[in-house]
Amino acid sequence: MTARILDGKALAQTIQEEIARAARELKEKHNITPGLATILVGDDPASHIYVKNKGRACEKVGFFSKSIILPQITSQQYLTELIGELNANPAIHGILVQLPLPQHIDENSIINAVHPEKDVDGFHPVNLGKMVLGREDYFLPCTPFGIQMLLARSGIETQGRHVVIVGRSNTVGKPTAIILMQKAAGADATVTVCHSRTKDLPAIIRQGDIVIAAIGRAEFIKADMVKPGAVVIDVGINRIEDFTKKSGYTIVGDVEFEKVKEVASAITPVPGGIGPMTIAMLLFNTLKAAKKTII
Amino acid sequence: MTARILDGKALAQTIQEEIARAARELKEKHNITPGLATILVGDDPASHIYVKNKGRACEKVGFFSKSIILPQITSQQYLTELIGELNANPAIHGILVQLPLPQHIDENSIINAVHPEKDVDGFHPVNLGKMVLGREDYFLPCTPFGIQMLLARSGIETQGRHVVIVGRSNTVGKPTAIILMQKAAGADATVTVCHSRTKDLPAIIRQGDIVIAAIGRAEFIKADMVKPGAVVIDVGINRIEDFTKKSGYTIVGDVEFEKVKEVASAITPVPGGIGPMTIAMLLFNTLKAAKKTII
Repeated sequence: MTARILDGKALAQTIQEEIARAARELKEKHNITPGLATILVGDDPASHIYVKNKGRACEKVGFFSKSIILPQITSQQYLTELIGELNANPAIHGILVQLPLPQHIDENSIINAVHPEKDVDGFHPVNLGKMVLGREDYFLPCTPFGIQMLLARSGIETQGRHVVIVGRSNTVGKPTAIILMQKAAGADATVTVCHSRTKDLPAIIRQGDIVIAAIGRAEFIKADMVKPGAVVIDVGINRIEDFTKKSGYTIVGDVEFEKVKEVASAITPVPGGIGPMTIAMLLFNTLKAAKKTII
Repeated sequence: MTARILDGKALAQTIQEEIARAARELKEKHNITPGLATILVGDDPASHIYVKNKGRACEKVGFFSKSIILPQITSQQYLTELIGELNANPAIHGILVQLPLPQHIDENSIINAVHPEKDVDGFHPVNLGKMVLGREDYFLPCTPFGIQMLLARSGIETQGRHVVIVGRSNTVGKPTAIILMQKAAGADATVTVCHSRTKDLPAIIRQGDIVIAAIGRAEFIKADMVKPGAVVIDVGINRIEDFTKKSGYTIVGDVEFEKVKEVASAITPVPGGIGPMTIAMLLFNTLKAAKKTII
């Protein structure tokens, strides 16, 4: 029996329609249009695509979107001052600095420069700290939030189930672990985080009722590492050479999809799984930021 | 074969001697004496003992210690203003507000009021967020830090080993998980967090090469839940009735010590294990805060 495909693209579409409705209401009742500023420094082609997609998503839901593209040589001081202006700008509710930044810019200090109440990416230490404390007054990082939302709205129970997260990044592994272990609805799971140093990784992964792959290695998770009937969430976005494609590459996840789907009970595809959910949650956070300005 | 006893009291003593030496040097070279202010609101007898022990530890290592004891009826506003004054006081490098606070005071807002650079307890969202990011410029919460230090200085390897943490509190379970999964020396472990909702808890705990018990239930962890040869860290401090004692109670941990020590390869006692390490790390953080003020 083949797995149910968890269609992140369709769910993200539904969530964006909900967000569009809420945005219209916010405009009618309070004269507020949620505004997102994206900042991109340099020429990384993948980053350009991500930022363009985010801008397009904003337009679709009726948000104001301001895209700022800066040259590779942009100074840290210039960038910091720009963020300061956006922090002070009442038309902008969310600020997203596309990572990675060029080598000569200190990423930590730029992340710190964004006002926590406009940090819709959820990367500011204050927001991550509030996440640890399980507080409500903050922004969850978009990818972990997208994972949780996809599970919840697909009717997949997490309470008491064993979630195995493969990868311990600041953007996915660590925050997803914290979010899913909280004593809260849509969480309450037993959580294991494993990684490159883990001994007998397959045996650990096979324990997962839910496996979340976020290691950034193409098709690393094989069918024999997955417990039959497990739910598999694939966060990987890896480019591999593919000369049959005009672009010369194809996008695959961290999971060997075709084979794992024969073992799992449910699985996210790549693309069309967690990627679109991440963008939907960015819009969700921007709406939340805008709503906070209601007087 | 009975387990090696991990003597937290003796190690804390050694660390305090190191801190005392560093404090003398700081005084001689820079005319700075580390200063810790402790604030206690109300009449909780356990809290009074904790605060007294912390003050005493400060004196032993040559720190300045200021103990502020306030009545149960203290207002939130008064407490907030007091913290504001301590934030501005250059003779005070660390501020510790003893928890729990009376019901009428909002703990979150008090924790937020302490300047992150004086938050030597490591409970401020900014410090917890920097912990998630694995940054250096912050204070680790004292109990998780004490656990890590005890493991490291007892020569217990964590890299690649499976650490099972029982309990998911904001003060112990969650931060200890993050700290021990980091890609860093004294960490780099595979980490599982389990709790009251975990299915087949004993089977999960039995996987631990290192088991950290922080659930607050007297002698909950039994010998048959522990893998032979595992290292057992007991964070619990539970009072149980004991009419043979003058006080009418005795202190036990979350681990059934007498039986588990016959199975484990190493174990911390209660008292005399993680408790004294927590105080030593509070002094360590206060010294770090004082050193930051060197011009």
